[in-house]
Order: sequence, then structure tokens, then C-alpha cells
Amino acid sequence: MKVKLLILGITLLLFSCGENSNLQNVYVRDIPELQGALNKAMPGDNIVMANGVWKDVPIIFFGKGTKEQPINLRAETPGKVFIEGESYLHLGGEHLIIDGLYFRNGYSPKNSIIRYMISEDSIAFNCRVTNTVIEDFTKPNRLTNDRWVEFYGKHNQLDHSYLSGKSNDGETVRVFFTGNEHINNHHQIVNNYFGPRPRKGGPRAETIRIGDSKTRVSPSFTNVSDNYFEACNGEVEIISDKTNFNTFKNNIFYKCEGSLVLRHGSYATVDANIFIGGDESDFYGGIRIVNTGHWITNNYFYKIKGKQFRSPLAIMNGIPMTPLNRYLQVSDVVVAYNTWIDCKSPWQIGVGQNLESADVLPPSEIRSAPPIRTIVANNIIYNTKIDETPVINHSTMEGVLFKNNIIDNASEDYSEYDVLQDGAIKMNKINEWLYAPADSENKIMEDVYTGYDFAKINHDIFGASRTEKNSIGAINQTATAEKFKIDKKKYGPKWFSTEKINIEPKILTASSAVGQLAEKISEAASGDIIELSDALYTLPSSLKIDKEITLRSKDSKNRAELVFTGMKDSVAFEMKPKGTIRLESLILKGEQSKYAFAPLKINMASAYNLYVENCVIEDFGYVLRAYKGSFADTINFKKTIIKNCQNGIELAAEDKGDYNAEMVSVDHCIFENVQSNIINFYRGGYDESTIGGFLSVTNSTFTDSGKNEKNDILIKTRGIINVTIKNNTFKNNPVELVALLWGEKNNHHLNNTLTNSGKIKVEEQQKLKILY
Amino acid sequence: MKVKLLILGITLLLFSCGENSNLQNVYVRDIPELQGALNKAMPGDNIVMANGVWKDVPIIFFGKGTKEQPINLRAETPGKVFIEGESYLHLGGEHLIIDGLYFRNGYSPKNSIIRYMISEDSIAFNCRVTNTVIEDFTKPNRLTNDRWVEFYGKHNQLDHSYLSGKSNDGETVRVFFTGNEHINNHHQIVNNYFGPRPRKGGPRAETIRIGDSKTRVSPSFTNVSDNYFEACNGEVEIISDKTNFNTFKNNIFYKCEGSLVLRHGSYATVDANIFIGGDESDFYGGIRIVNTGHWITNNYFYKIKGKQFRSPLAIMNGIPMTPLNRYLQVSDVVVAYNTWIDCKSPWQIGVGQNLESADVLPPSEIRSAPPIRTIVANNIIYNTKIDETPVINHSTMEGVLFKNNIIDNASEDYSEYDVLQDGAIKMNKINEWLYAPADSENKIMEDVYTGYDFAKINHDIFGASRTEKNSIGAINQTATAEKFKIDKKKYGPKWFSTEKINIEPKILTASSAVGQLAEKISEAASGDIIELSDALYTLPSSLKIDKEITLRSKDSKNRAELVFTGMKDSVAFEMKPKGTIRLESLILKGEQSKYAFAPLKINMASAYNLYVENCVIEDFGYVLRAYKGSFADTINFKKTIIKNCQNGIELAAEDKGDYNAEMVSVDHCIFENVQSNIINFYRGGYDESTIGGFLSVTNSTFTDSGKNEKNDILIKTRGIINVTIKNNTFKNNPVELVALLWGEKNNHHLNNTLTNSGKIKVEEQQKLKILY
Repeated sequence: MKVKLLILGITLLLFSCGENSNLQNVYVRDIPELQGALNKAMPGDNIVMANGVWKDVPIIFFGKGTKEQPINLRAETPGKVFIEGESYLHLGGEHLIIDGLYFRNGYSPKNSIIRYMISEDSIAFNCRVTNTVIEDFTKPNRLTNDRWVEFYGKHNQLDHSYLSGKSNDGETVRVFFTGNEHINNHHQIVNNYFGPRPRKGGPRAETIRIGDSKTRVSPSFTNVSDNYFEACNGEVEIISDKTNFNTFKNNIFYKCEGSLVLRHGSYATVDANIFIGGDESDFYGGIRIVNTGHWITNNYFYKIKGKQFRSPLAIMNGIPMTPLNRYLQVSDVVVAYNTWIDCKSPWQIGVGQNLESADVLPPSEIRSAPPIRTIVANNIIYNTKIDETPVINHSTMEGVLFKNNIIDNASEDYSEYDVLQDGAIKMNKINEWLYAPADSENKIMEDVYTGYDFAKINHDIFGASRTEKNSIGAINQTATAEKFKIDKKKYGPKWFSTEKINIEPKILTASSAVGQLAEKISEAASGDIIELSDALYTLPSSLKIDKEITLRSKDSKNRAELVFTGMKDSVAFEMKPKGTIRLESLILKGEQSKYAFAPLKINMASAYNLYVENCVIEDFGYVLRAYKGSFADTINFKKTIIKNCQNGIELAAEDKGDYNAEMVSVDHCIFENVQSNIINFYRGGYDESTIGGFLSVTNSTFTDSGKNEKNDILIKTRGIINVTIKNNTFKNNPVELVALLWGEKNNHHLNNTLTNSGKIKVEEQQKLKILY
Repeated sequence: MKVKLLILGITLLLFSCGENSNLQNVYVRDIPELQGALNKAMPGDNIVMANGVWKDVPIIFFGKGTKEQPINLRAETPGKVFIEGESYLHLGGEHLIIDGLYFRNGYSPKNSIIRYMISEDSIAFNCRVTNTVIEDFTKPNRLTNDRWVEFYGKHNQLDHSYLSGKSNDGETVRVFFTGNEHINNHHQIVNNYFGPRPRKGGPRAETIRIGDSKTRVSPSFTNVSDNYFEACNGEVEIISDKTNFNTFKNNIFYKCEGSLVLRHGSYATVDANIFIGGDESDFYGGIRIVNTGHWITNNYFYKIKGKQFRSPLAIMNGIPMTPLNRYLQVSDVVVAYNTWIDCKSPWQIGVGQNLESADVLPPSEIRSAPPIRTIVANNIIYNTKIDETPVINHSTMEGVLFKNNIIDNASEDYSEYDVLQDGAIKMNKINEWLYAPADSENKIMEDVYTGYDFAKINHDIFGASRTEKNSIGAINQTATAEKFKIDKKKYGPKWFSTEKINIEPKILTASSAVGQLAEKISEAASGDIIELSDALYTLPSSLKIDKEITLRSKDSKNRAELVFTGMKDSVAFEMKPKGTIRLESLILKGEQSKYAFAPLKINMASAYNLYVENCVIEDFGYVLRAYKGSFADTINFKKTIIKNCQNGIELAAEDKGDYNAEMVSVDHCIFENVQSNIINFYRGGYDESTIGGFLSVTNSTFTDSGKNEKNDILIKTRGIINVTIKNNTFKNNPVELVALLWGEKNNHHLNNTLTNSGKIKVEEQQKLKILY
């Protein structure tokens, strides 16, 4: 094996340690050179990977550096070393530093990309991965499980890195506790940028998970601080803490549809985090509390509107003598000096109380134990518009001591529970999301409750001292708050930009010449619009959609007609990972053996989206047919006629809880002579911590449909948590039920007209196959 | 309130702090003076209690001392201040020291005697009770629950104290975790002498309990070190650890019928403890392991012969996803450098595996999860007589790594499992119980396994270093071991002696003169023998037995006859707390409405004992009748004829698991015409961690009995764990069953002759009322 040594003067200057003249810079240009250098690495070595694309690289890096002389593996230029194909980086030994790599265009063939362990005999201690990007390095099959970063050992670090786009099963980062080598680990997960993680539809899509359901007693001391989380929407938990003594500090959660959840962990420090939501989603979450001994202090919540499990502050009910993997009663928790601004029902106490399900669930599932020995003190709720229910009591609050909390509910009095005092707070708006109390003008804020050990809360959210002057809420000093700005440079690698360049979409035109439409789609950039200028288009084969494409008639009044003439069982619009199709003002015709829309049968690595407006879809075997493992983020039919089809919208290819779509809506549509599966949206496996599946059917008409419906139900929603059926007309559909709703969950129907069409039934409790 | 101040020169000299001239010695002589002094106490004060008896003293001591200037409450002469009657000592505040008190002749009217908390608002921190004795300060009613010492707060200490004789319900010492004020407590329980605690018969009789079934995740850091435990026989657990990070070090367990049990706690350090057993009991226990992360190192076990839950080393099976109050699977435990000498089946792995009970117990009771990721290394088993089964595998041992363990099984080869290597070890016998390997002669011991973090085991049981030279087993250096002697002065107060003075029993003689026998019993010292010189004694009223008395015929060939002529429903021998009666060679006659033996109906504060040999008991309503709350340690009938009685031995007055006797035996006896309850030994409430109730019926004859037996069972043993029925003859007893045994437990029958007497049935599993 040839290993070329290149003394890079500049690298040496940058990397070398003054006291040591034995430093060796090893420049490697291919995999054999890399492996050779790793095999020979000595303390103080710098192994420098040449710029360029490295494909299919299994980096197994074992070495024993020292604190003073770590062994370094670095990109020649940070961000210019691209790790692609089937690649991974597994570390073992001590004091290794990996710096500046960029994982993209591929995935790991292992269970992890970065792992702080090579094997059980070769665990990493004091190793650091920094300045690294992992982008869309996701498994081809969404159902295949992996983690991107697996922590083992002790004192390991992931910092200044950017991770985004994991869409398959499994947490983005996970800390393991499979032995004494891995406890009391003091891992540092700091200054990272966790970019968007799409909705997965089902569990195991946390961004960070520390431990598992068996690690409730494990001491961890993992530090997750100074990170930026953006649109981490994988599931209901952004972070799932399942071990003890962890710290979550100074993180920013920006528009994330999940919560920081203290799931099986106890004695967490959750301090000075910022949760920024907004009006565009009802799923942005806050902090959910289970277990014992947490201190939730100095946190700031803006426009967090999640409900129940995603509440801005959810203090859960537990299960008496809970099984290991269920909910420990909350006790000895302190929630102090936090501020909620314009949140919806920010305080929810006893979340998860489910005594009404006692008949369909075993006793070990019934959360009847309310929080005890818990203090909620010195907090502020401030609303610019009135919130009718700032506090929701799901169980009993007798075990919670509320002290010196003030609410300014858009100056309206609030008195439902005796847990908040009304008070007018003078606020300064610092920026779009940050409100700080005007210092000297809020005397009422200076009456501070002091509980056991409260003296340790000696700083506010922005680091201002609380020892001289103190006041309730997250912000103790207006001056410091006024200076605060989110500095994106603190998060992720400096060389990587998360700023999106806004490209104006192009409008292309496709004529009916055979093949031209497919060609235009292929040429188009994501986001472009293709207008159909002719009246009739024949599609002899599937259109492949792997980016965002809008297809519309040039004249919405004279709708172009697309006739799909492809083979039997083929699909007009084949949705590929990350494909988004928007059809506007078109007529789509097929034949009974063909499908209008369908995802790939295998390797749907990422979600697809489907928007159909002002269209007609007729004569298909299926309008939409999902396959196992496929997932649509959004499916949206609007002002569209669906007629003479064997099947309608079928999203039912699942049995383990990984359902086929998140947001499905049908509005102002007409279904006529659709023979079965008019809408079939199904979740087979039940995990009650997954709270998705949304179906909205509104202002639509269903006629002469369901003739071949075996289940005798027109709109099937088994296992789906959120269903709204409103303002529809059902006429002459030969079924027993129009819908069978799940009363205990968020299933509702209102103002529907049913004529010769069976009825809508609500079953309060449903028995489901529990997955844990 | 008059408070007399007395500057005691000598006290001042002894107690005062050199740097401080404000020290105040306050001499108090009665309760008002004491309370007044306590109310005014300032840092540095010495409140001195006058010698003598203090009766009914509620000492509520709140004060704020400092580290440099604690507030002291001291006996004028340690051990000469007697706290009697209904008294207690509750502490609150900081830096208090209580020194030299002697609690006796009474009990606390509260739930505790010493409590490190006055109320939830008044908790003790950094407080110390030292040099104190609590002796027999036990509640009148055994079923009334209390603790003698309740720890709350943080950094409190109990040291150099002696506690013995608690016979009622409740732990002797308990540490509480009811809030953030009480975790991470670093309490010190050191240099104490825990004297005998009698068998209780049922749960909640630990000597020390740290936490409860809900504190599995609580960090504790309680230190239980350098204590001496003697005959702490309350129940199967001497110490029950239910929280995390506790230390048990350098303790001596001398002939204790229980174990150090890591029940709900994890990450315990169990180092350098000595467990001394012997041949006289099969119940001496060792260390029982549940949960995760314990280090069991440098411990020494001599003649520990307990089985199953009381095994010298019991590594338990857990319950998958266990409920909070049941058994967590064992993981990540290290058992290293321990020595077992002449123990019976010292290693028991998978203890508690109960898959066979799956039909009668719910899944949440089935211990099917074997230990995992556990290391057993560098240990020695040494036997002077061969042990056929040094290792018992109750489940599967695949999750346990056995490394470098040596057995010298009286020089016989042992090879049942591949977990021990045979090796001849040259041992020196240092004293009655201590064997140390001869240093230079055991080369095989020098091959030491090194697992993760084993370097921290850097000393041996007696403090000798392991860093230069190292060898397996608890003792690394013979020279240090040879110097070791148990120094009783290290344990408990120096002023208190635990040495028993051996008084030779006196032999008294009682004639048949009316009242003389009662008089002699009253006069006799405990242990004395009273001989009956006449032929016939009439007992017009009950003989009260509150000490140990032997009653025997002067001539065992010509047995004296005692005829009880007391009232209806009265009892010939009324057993009082701590009463022991030994009847030898007597004939005891009664009437059908009277009892031969019975305890008090209420306030049986302590156990009684009953030994009957070579006697005849006839014509009674009951031979023995127990009442609820009464408890006999030993009931022993030998070579005795019981005839013409309505009822025999009834020990069945219970429903919550507090059964009425521990050791019951009947040997070479004859039962003739006993109409019901021939033997009725019953436990109603089932707690499977209580493993008692022993009944042995051997070499006896039962004839014409059971005529009025409603249950159609002659010998009733429902709920009793250990039953032996062997070599008996049953003839003409009109019952369906002679006995119904519990096959899964330690119930056995052998070699009985049954003629016209029903049969003995074994029911493998019994359904019982579970108590937790």
C-alpha cells in the first residue's frame, strides 16, 4: 500500500501543537491510502483526506491518541471532501478528531453512519466529530432502520455539524447504554444545526434519543446544548430523553412539530431553551414531562400551539407501578421562571389521563396517577390575543404547587383555576418572536417565590444574573434580551450555509406532441410550472415525478385532457421520493386496470406530495394506491370530480404503525360511482405516542359509490387519530356506514346530509394491536 | 419556664471549640428546661441533659448550627441519660449533634423514634446522632408499624449507636425520598452495632431500608459502612437497597438470617463486607442482586448456607418490562474478587425464575429475564468439605461472563458448568471463620482477569493494595489478613457493652402447695429451672410466662401431673412477650373449654417460644391457640402425647401475611382423638419475598382425629412455604386429606403410612392473595 506523505505547511501551522515536533501530516488520496494511514496512526498525526468525491468508503478508524496529542482525520478543505455512495465512519479508541467531512448522495450500508464504536471490544472514548455535514444520506427503503450517529463509550462529542433529511426509520442521533462502558458518558452534542427532518408517519423518528425503554435508571450526563433545531418534524418527540441527569440548555427549536420529551429520563436540566412556533401549524410542541426530578427553568415559548402530547408545557399523568416501558408518575419537578407568549393552552396538567379507556386497555396502560410534589412558580403567560383556556386540567392538579405565576391574557381577567394571578405586564417587542418585559415598569414581577434549592437558578435565559435583582419569567434583564439575536454561525459548520436561495419558478409549455410532456418534466427544475397548451394529450407511459412540478392547463376554463394509455397495472403519475405534483385544471382519463397516481413499490426513501385542484379524474382502477413503506406528507384534492373508478384513494398498505400519509384532505370534491375504497386510510399498528394521520373531508358529494365495498363502510379511517367529516352530502351509496369514527381520539363529524347511504357511527373506544 | 444554667467546667473543656468563647453550656434537668433550652439554642451551644430517667419526653429539636459551631444535645454522662416511656427525638434545621442518649423501657408514640425531620417545612440537614442506644423500644402491638430511625434531608448521620430488639412491623432504619430535599443525601450510617432483631414472620422487618418501590430512579449516595450486624433476623432482607449509588462497605454480618439485597437500587458499591454464618442455621444469607450496575467486590463469606433468595450469592432473574415494584432484569453487574468458604451452593444464578407458575400468576409476576452483561471474575470458592452443587443455574447463564474463578472443592474436581476452574489453594486458617491464602504458594491465583474499569478495584478486603501484586479472591495479602481481628469497640457506643454475662441457671423446686408454682415462676430469673417434686398440682389460674422458664418433673420417670382448673376460656400457660416455656416430663390436664397454651390477645410486642418434651396434654379445648398479631419463634413438641382435645395446634389468626409462628415442629408425638385443627398453620396474605413458615411433622402417630374437621384436612398448611411430613403413621382419621401440600414451594412428604385416613395431596401451584 502506497502512502504518500505530504507536508502541508499551512495545515501544519493550523493543526500542529506547539510543544510537539513529531506531528505527522499524512495526505491521502484514495481508500487504500486512507486505510493505510489510519492503521499506522500515532498520537498527534493529522491524516488529511484529499478534496473530491470519495465513493463507497467504509472508514473504520481505530486509534489511541492522547488529550494533548489526538489523532486527527481532516478534510483537505472542510466541506470539499464528499463522502458518497455506501459509506460510513466508525470510531474506536481514544482521542480521535474527525473534521470537515460532507456525507451526501448515498447512505450507510450499516445500522449507522457515524458510530462511536467499532465493536464491543473497540469502543470510542474522548472522540470528536466536528464541522461535518450529513445531508439526505438516508436509506433507500424508509422502513429500513438506522441511526445517523450512534453514541457509545464516554466523553464523545458531535459539534458544529449539520444533519438533515433523514426520512427513514430510526432516530437521527442516539445514545446507547449497553454496558458500564457507556454510562456516565458526559457526551457533548453541542453547536449543531439539526436541519429539517420530514414527518415520518409513525414512531422512531426522533432527532435525538438518549437511551431506550430499559434505561430508566441509567446515569447519563449527556449534554445537548447550544443546538439549533429547524423543522425537526419526524414525529411527536424531537428529543426523547430516556436516561438520567441530562442537560438541555440554550437550544433553539425553530418551527419543529414535536416536543422535547422527558420520556423515561429523570433529573433533567432543561434551561434557557427557545421554542419558536407560528400560526401555520398546530403541531409545534414544547416540553413534555414524565418521571421525576426535572428542573425546567428559563425557557421561552413563542406561538407554540400543539395540543395534548405536543402542548407547550405538558405535565403527564403516570401509570401506578408502571411497567418499565410505560409512564412513571411525575414527581419532584420544578417548572420555574419560564415565559409563554401567544401560545395556545400552554399549561396542560395530567396529559394522557385515559381512565375512560379502562375497558379496552389493560390496567398497565391506564394513566391515572397525577403529578405530585411538583412546583410551578415564577412563570409568565403573556397573550396579545385572549386565550380562553390557558390552563387545561386533564386529571387533578392537587399535587402541583402553583406559586407567583402571572398571566396577562390580553388584559382580560382569567380565573378558572387558582394557579395564575392576573397582572398587566408591560412588554417590549424585541423582534418577530421575542418579547421582553420592560425593566422598571413591572413591579408585580418582582415578587418571586423561593422553593427548595431555587437559589441555583441564578441566571436568566440570556445569562443575566438573578442574584442582585430578580423577577419572574425567563427574562430578568431587558438590556440583555434587547441585544439577543440568533447567530446562525454558532450552529453547524461555518463552511455550510443553510440559507435557501429563492429561485423564481419558470413557466414552461408542453404541446401534445408525443413525449414532449415527459421531456419537459425531465428538463424542469424543481418548482417549475408546465402549462398544457393543447386540448388532448396521450400518455403512453408513466410520468415520473421526482421533484416539485406544477402541471396546469394554459386556460383554466378550457381544461386539457390527458389520456393515459399505458400498460395494465401501470400508473399515470409515478411518484418518486421527494416528488411533488400539483395538477390544476386538467382532465385525467384512464382505464379500469390502471392507476392515476402511485408511489414506487420499493425504495420510497422519502415522502411525496400530491395536490389536485379543479380537475376531473375518471375511469381508473385506482385514483391513488399506496404501497407498503411509501409515505405522502400531503394529499390534497380540491374542487375535483372523481368518477367511474373501481377504487378511490387507498392509503392502507401497512400493519405496523408506519401509515401511508400524514395530511389528507378532500374539499369541495365530487365522488361518483367509485366502487370501493372511496377513501381508505388505515393504520394497523397502534402506538399511542404517534398522534398522526389527519383526514379532512369537507363540502364534498358522494353519490352511487361503494357498490363493491366489502367492509360496507364508505370512508374507512381505522386507526387514524384525526378525522373530520363535515358539510358533505352522501346520496344513494349502498353501504351500511358512511364512516366509523373513533370517539376517544380527534374524530368528528358535523353537518353532513345522508340520503339512502347508511349512517355515520362513532365508536368511543377501539381495540388495536399495541406495538410495544 | 425556669432554665438553670450551670457552667460545667469539665464539660466545657471537653466540648468547647477553641476559637470560640461564646459557647454556652446549658444544663437541663427536666422536660420544660430541656424544651426551653432547645428553643433558645444558638450555634455552639451545648445542652446537657442531666443523668437519670427521663420519662415520656417528646424531644422536638429545631436549630440552626453551623459546621464550625453545631448545636449539641448531650447526655451528662453518655449512657446515663435514660429516655423511657412514650418518647421520641425529632430533628430539624442544620448542624445539630445528639450524643449519648439511651432509649429503653418504652416506645415512640409516633411513627418513629429518631427522625431527621420535624415536618415537611422543617427538615434536618447535616445533623448527627451518635453514641446512642435504642434497646427494645418496640411498640406494644407487633402489627403497629413504625421505624426507629427515619432519615430525611441530606448529609445526616447515625454513628456509633446500638439498636436492637425491634419486634414490631417496620424497618429499624429507613431512608426516605419524598422530594428533592431528600435525594443525593450522602447520609452516613457508620460504625453502628445493629444487635439482634428477632424473626418477625412477614415483610417489613429489614434492619435498614433505603427507599421504597417507587424510588428506583432516585440518586441517594447513602453510605452504610463499618457497621456490625448481629442476628438481624427480622426477615429475608437485612438491608434493602431501593435507590441508586449507595455504598455498603466494611460491614460485618454476623449470623444474620437474611441478605444484603439490592432490591430496587442500582449502581451499588458492595465492597469488603464479611458475612459470617455457621452450622446452626440454614438461613444465613449473603448478597442478593437485582437491577443494574452493581460492583460486588472483595467480600468474604463463611458458612453461609441460605438457599434461593438467601443464597450466598443470588443473582436474580427479572421480569421483562417489569412493573415498578417488581424485579428489574440484572445487567451490567460485576462480581469480582470475592471469596466463599464452606458455603452451601454459593452461586445461584437466575434465582426467582418461576416460569412454571405462569398459569397461576399474571405475566407481570413471571421472572423470565436472565441476567445479562454481567461479569463474575477473579473469585474463589473454597470448601473443606465437598459441596456437590457449588453453582445452581435456575435459568440461563449465557448473559454472564465467568472469568478466572477458582474452586477448591475439598480437592475434588468440579466441572458441572464451565464457570470455575479447579485449583488447589493453600489456605491458612487465621481464626474460627477466616481463611487466607498462603501468599507465595498460590501461583494459580495470580492469573487475574481485567475487565472494563477493573483498575478501580485497587484494594483488597482488608485494605491491602492490589496495584503492585494482585491475586484473585477477597484477600490479596496474607500478612494483613493475619492481623485482622473484629474490634467490637469500633461499633456502637463505647459505653455500651454487647457482651452477655453468662449466668448459670438456678434450679428451684416447687411443691404442690397452692400458689407456690406461680410464685416460683415469678421469682425465677430468666433461664432458671423449676422442678416439680410432688405428684399432683392444681392450677386454679393461668401461669404467666414472660421470661425463659423450664418446668420439669424432678423425676422424669414419675411425671408430675398439672390439672388446670381455671375459668372457661382461660389458659394454663399464658405466653407473654419474650416468654419461653420448656415443659419436660409433665402431664397437663384441662377441660374442653380451656386452653393449654396461648399468647396474649393484644400487645404481643415480641415473640414467645414453646418447647414441650416427654409430656402428655389432654382434655383441652385447644392445645395452642394463636391470636392475631402474636408470633412464636419456635414451637417444638417432642415425644409428647396429645389426646382427647377439641383442637390441637392452631396458628391461623392472620390474613395479611403476618403469620403466627416461624419454626413449628412435631417429632415422635402421638395425636389421639383431637377433633379438629390437629395442626392448622396458615398464612393468608402472600408476599413471595417472605419465605418463611416452617412446619416439620416427623415420626408421629395420628389416630382417631379430625372428626369435626370442617375442611376435611387433618394437617392444614395453607400458604406455609416450608413443610415436611415424614415417617408418620395416620390411622382411622375420618378426613379426605391428611395434608394438601404446595408443590412449587418447599413442601415435601415421605414415608408416611396412611390407613383409613384419606391421602396426602400435592398441588403444584396455589393461588394466593398477593399483597403488593
